[in-house]
Amino acid sequence: MQLGMVGLGRMGGNLVRRLMRAGIGCVVWDRDPAVVAALAAEGAEAATDLPDLVRRLAAPRAVWVMLPAGAATEDAVAQLGGLLSPGDVAIDGGNGMWKDAIRRAGLLREAGIDMLDIGTSGGVWGLARGYCLMIGGPAAPVERLDPVFKALAPGEEAAAPTPGRSAAADPRPPQGYVHCGANGAGHFTKMVHNAVEYGMMQAMAEGLELLRQQGSEAVAPELRLDLDVPDITEAWRRGSVVASWLLDLTAQALAADGELSGYSGRVGDSGEGRWAVQAAIEAAVPAPVLSAALYSRFRSRQEAPFADRSLSAMRNAFGGHLEPK
Amino acid sequence: MQLGMVGLGRMGGNLVRRLMRAGIGCVVWDRDPAVVAALAAEGAEAATDLPDLVRRLAAPRAVWVMLPAGAATEDAVAQLGGLLSPGDVAIDGGNGMWKDAIRRAGLLREAGIDMLDIGTSGGVWGLARGYCLMIGGPAAPVERLDPVFKALAPGEEAAAPTPGRSAAADPRPPQGYVHCGANGAGHFTKMVHNAVEYGMMQAMAEGLELLRQQGSEAVAPELRLDLDVPDITEAWRRGSVVASWLLDLTAQALAADGELSGYSGRVGDSGEGRWAVQAAIEAAVPAPVLSAALYSRFRSRQEAPFADRSLSAMRNAFGGHLEPK
Amino acid sequence: MQLGMVGLGRMGGNLVRRLMRAGIGCVVWDRDPAVVAALAAEGAEAATDLPDLVRRLAAPRAVWVMLPAGAATEDAVAQLGGLLSPGDVAIDGGNGMWKDAIRRAGLLREAGIDMLDIGTSGGVWGLARGYCLMIGGPAAPVERLDPVFKALAPGEEAAAPTPGRSAAADPRPPQGYVHCGANGAGHFTKMVHNAVEYGMMQAMAEGLELLRQQGSEAVAPELRLDLDVPDITEAWRRGSVVASWLLDLTAQALAADGELSGYSGRVGDSGEGRWAVQAAIEAAVPAPVLSAALYSRFRSRQEAPFADRSLSAMRNAFGGHLEPK
Amino acid sequence: MQLGMVGLGRMGGNLVRRLMRAGIGCVVWDRDPAVVAALAAEGAEAATDLPDLVRRLAAPRAVWVMLPAGAATEDAVAQLGGLLSPGDVAIDGGNGMWKDAIRRAGLLREAGIDMLDIGTSGGVWGLARGYCLMIGGPAAPVERLDPVFKALAPGEEAAAPTPGRSAAADPRPPQGYVHCGANGAGHFTKMVHNAVEYGMMQAMAEGLELLRQQGSEAVAPELRLDLDVPDITEAWRRGSVVASWLLDLTAQALAADGELSGYSGRVGDSGEGRWAVQAAIEAAVPAPVLSAALYSRFRSRQEAPFADRSLSAMRNAFGGHLEPK
Repeated sequence: MQLGMVGLGRMGGNLVRRLMRAGIGCVVWDRDPAVVAALAAEGAEAATDLPDLVRRLAAPRAVWVMLPAGAATEDAVAQLGGLLSPGDVAIDGGNGMWKDAIRRAGLLREAGIDMLDIGTSGGVWGLARGYCLMIGGPAAPVERLDPVFKALAPGEEAAAPTPGRSAAADPRPPQGYVHCGANGAGHFTKMVHNAVEYGMMQAMAEGLELLRQQGSEAVAPELRLDLDVPDITEAWRRGSVVASWLLDLTAQALAADGELSGYSGRVGDSGEGRWAVQAAIEAAVPAPVLSAALYSRFRSRQEAPFADRSLSAMRNAFGGHLEPK
Repeated sequence: MQLGMVGLGRMGGNLVRRLMRAGIGCVVWDRDPAVVAALAAEGAEAATDLPDLVRRLAAPRAVWVMLPAGAATEDAVAQLGGLLSPGDVAIDGGNGMWKDAIRRAGLLREAGIDMLDIGTSGGVWGLARGYCLMIGGPAAPVERLDPVFKALAPGEEAAAPTPGRSAAADPRPPQGYVHCGANGAGHFTKMVHNAVEYGMMQAMAEGLELLRQQGSEAVAPELRLDLDVPDITEAWRRGSVVASWLLDLTAQALAADGELSGYSGRVGDSGEGRWAVQAAIEAAVPAPVLSAALYSRFRSRQEAPFADRSLSAMRNAFGGHLEPK
Repeated sequence: MQLGMVGLGRMGGNLVRRLMRAGIGCVVWDRDPAVVAALAAEGAEAATDLPDLVRRLAAPRAVWVMLPAGAATEDAVAQLGGLLSPGDVAIDGGNGMWKDAIRRAGLLREAGIDMLDIGTSGGVWGLARGYCLMIGGPAAPVERLDPVFKALAPGEEAAAPTPGRSAAADPRPPQGYVHCGANGAGHFTKMVHNAVEYGMMQAMAEGLELLRQQGSEAVAPELRLDLDVPDITEAWRRGSVVASWLLDLTAQALAADGELSGYSGRVGDSGEGRWAVQAAIEAAVPAPVLSAALYSRFRSRQEAPFADRSLSAMRNAFGGHLEPK
Repeated sequence: MQLGMVGLGRMGGNLVRRLMRAGIGCVVWDRDPAVVAALAAEGAEAATDLPDLVRRLAAPRAVWVMLPAGAATEDAVAQLGGLLSPGDVAIDGGNGMWKDAIRRAGLLREAGIDMLDIGTSGGVWGLARGYCLMIGGPAAPVERLDPVFKALAPGEEAAAPTPGRSAAADPRPPQGYVHCGANGAGHFTKMVHNAVEYGMMQAMAEGLELLRQQGSEAVAPELRLDLDVPDITEAWRRGSVVASWLLDLTAQALAADGELSGYSGRVGDSGEGRWAVQAAIEAAVPAPVLSAALYSRFRSRQEAPFADRSLSAMRNAFGGHLEPK
């Protein structure tokens, strides 16, 4: 088994490392020669450019594009359309937009090339823990590349078996990867995953602020409670209903600094949370929590936005309340 | 007709002025002698303290307490319980909590004294436009004080008649005052009014920000639109579905300063928006808009809250995203 | 002055009537000959098809397309591209998507034809009250068609002048129409208008339910309040901060039936509320109220959605709570 | 070590079982003799009433009240105030309101009796997995009862150690129990825990509906995706950011019935989600996700609520849209 990897950032590089550990040969390329050299030193085969990478792979080839969503991925997949041969597979990785995946797969299909869109969760921990893979595309290449997915995924032992799951059910999901459906399904599922992640994070964040704020002067003295947020999150990790990997990470961050004073609170968002809410609206699905989580991030990056100044202006106009500058 | 007014701030003072214009005699008191003197110069009868105010009124008396909700109102109503006589009426004005009104009315009732809880909308414009009054309490004193309410209310000509409203219906609401029900009903209705006000304001504010932001660098150049928000709000005032007094005030504020640069955007809230959401929760009423409007105000007064820093910390922990300070 | 109108539904037909009352000649066409005949009987000039309509107009022509957003409008505007001459104007009316307006205007511009995108608010009341017009496109045709817009708009007397609005400011917005900006700006502004409308409606709806629910068994008997919602909304129309056209209509509906028992509560939505939230997300504008209003409508049309069944399933799984069927 | 348990429902009974397994003697009482007899058969000492239970315990006594929040708990704790002696401990268990705990503790303190308020998470799984305990009250009884808490908690091995947690930190939280602070702190923390739980559940539920709805007719055919929700949740359990106990349970429910057709979707709520949002409002903490989760549950139990009928009525009034019955 052999794979080409285009884009050797944090995600692409570690995917290659995990594949090599499983004995899968990787031909790698990145526009930054230094990262190519670094992976070559760890055992990967270095390519000098995309055509060279394709040349170095034996047919039927599989090339995984792990670049930022948008123009970079668009260009690389388009280029692969000209370089690959019928029977080869291009993988649209990264956090891409699912409608783009559907469109790109249609273009490659005309050239006889299969495309898979794969969403990958696991972040900086994936190298050690394995990656959860959400795969969209035709069944044949998904089956052919099964060893690749199996090597990347965490494996069954990463969680206890689900009671009641049928023995006849697909054996792949319990290992941490899933063939979600036709093209687009991989990125769509990853998009929903990330939106759920935003919502869970925001639920936790609101709870933590509520715990902490109860000790503040915003609360009447006789009701004030001085709560140890780091210890509480640590305790919740065992036996409680909110036990989760996000809680583990939260407890870890709070163990390092209970005040979280090193964080700005200007929270980024990466596209998928946005697309998910837009998709919910297109499908008429109420998504109040997914939206609220997104808006909290938007708001965290604003200062005195026009909306708030409008409210101040209205209050002043009808009630003579001039908000303090 | 005669009324005692306790508390001569912006609201109490103008209520007195509007009553005097209608020929209703007012005995007034405030802990600040200067405002008492000012209203006396305009024709009100000055009292030196609360007992004096009660003494100066002929039975059956009516005393309107127009003080800040909370301790000030609590004290004044309790004092009135000792000063008034059976058959007199105490009015719990201001933006009080409806459960307090129910409790206070129960205490006064034991002494044979009626209480009315009255919510008053109109702000700094009420003197000229009239006040919308929401009244809770027993029917008899509401009827006896009808001339007071009629004098304060805007009157029928303030809006076109409602097509289809029955000729047999209560003639008071079309004049701008309403006997909402038993004690508590006045403040409850005013509380809901204010929560609706918050929601409408927030709807408008979000729309204005969206109009404005579309001209900003957050939007791709080919979709950017430079919109004249003051002119748009002015046009919306006529013929559109969002025509409203709040829009009139918004257009006015934008006519004075299209950037609203004189406003801090730290938006206050006065109790009723909070109580309304809490009441909705007690009655299991979904109130997403009323809540969102309230939370936007809370958030407008925070900087880098713990919740947002928690999100930053989680993102850093799983994805290595360190948010910029 | 002369105008062609394509699409004679509720909106198109009444626009023509209002124009004819102002002495503006209208050439009309609709795929339903009956509605063409009806308007011809009222004084409009009937066309037999779109080419005929164009032929009957003197250059420089102006043709207003008032068809459902989407394919119908797309087709008609495209057809007009082939029928009109340089210097003519096509109007993309209806509740169209602003990005479509930008695209369509670009196509027509290549043929030397100007396009205006116009959002129109006023509903079934517009014939009598006038329409609020939000116009996007180049300045020259906007100026040339000023008599048309002036005839359709409510006029200055429809609302009191805005204090402080500069005498040097654009005289059109105080009449109820506004040149919002370049192509797309008209539909974008109308989209935001409708989203604000959704938000204001939802604020009102939540308030009304809260008033009503307080008299129900969901509330403890000692706190229960039996509130007369029709009378309260009637009183709010005068002097209160929530006075608005939507409140007028609400009071009217409640005067006809205080229980609103004739309404299903399955609330439709027409595209603009959705696009507005999607636009907010693209511009990173927090829009919690606009979204909540939209989701309430989505939810009103669902029964036992999968999301809720999932919650039931989770509760059963961890707590043994089996929700009653 | 010995403990009295009052209330032997699902929670109380299993707490006793887990304590007995650890060799802690339990004296038990419930108003239902059958459940008392059942636990006696498993080794507990049966009491005939509350005074008898107190008599059977050696001083200093500890009595855990595990009854429904509200009147049942109120009565039992009040009764214990008359039965216990200085130096004894009463435990206010169950999902009680934190302000009640503060008040009750104050009353018992006057009689020299300590009270602890303990929130317990773990549901029907707690017997096997252990319970997460959140404890409020004075330090001395918390320390004295440490063997009880240790026996009930899951223990350190239930989760991996938190990297970076100081060796000098409190050793109890890593075992799954935490002394949160003074009286009220236990129930307050449990209340926040449950609100976070609601938020996480709702995030997951919205995501699942979005996945499922994408295969429905609400979506344009060319974008429709038929996604296997059971397999996707199974895969997410390993390596993904949303891995959590709630996800484990969701996957389990979906393995049993991918349609979740056995669930009504009328989702209950138990008080803590409500109190948490009310507490957030009192402390001016924005809680959009916690609120949205609560409102979704409220809405799931309504049919054609007045709010939605109001929206329909308004739409009909201004636009002539009569929503289908």
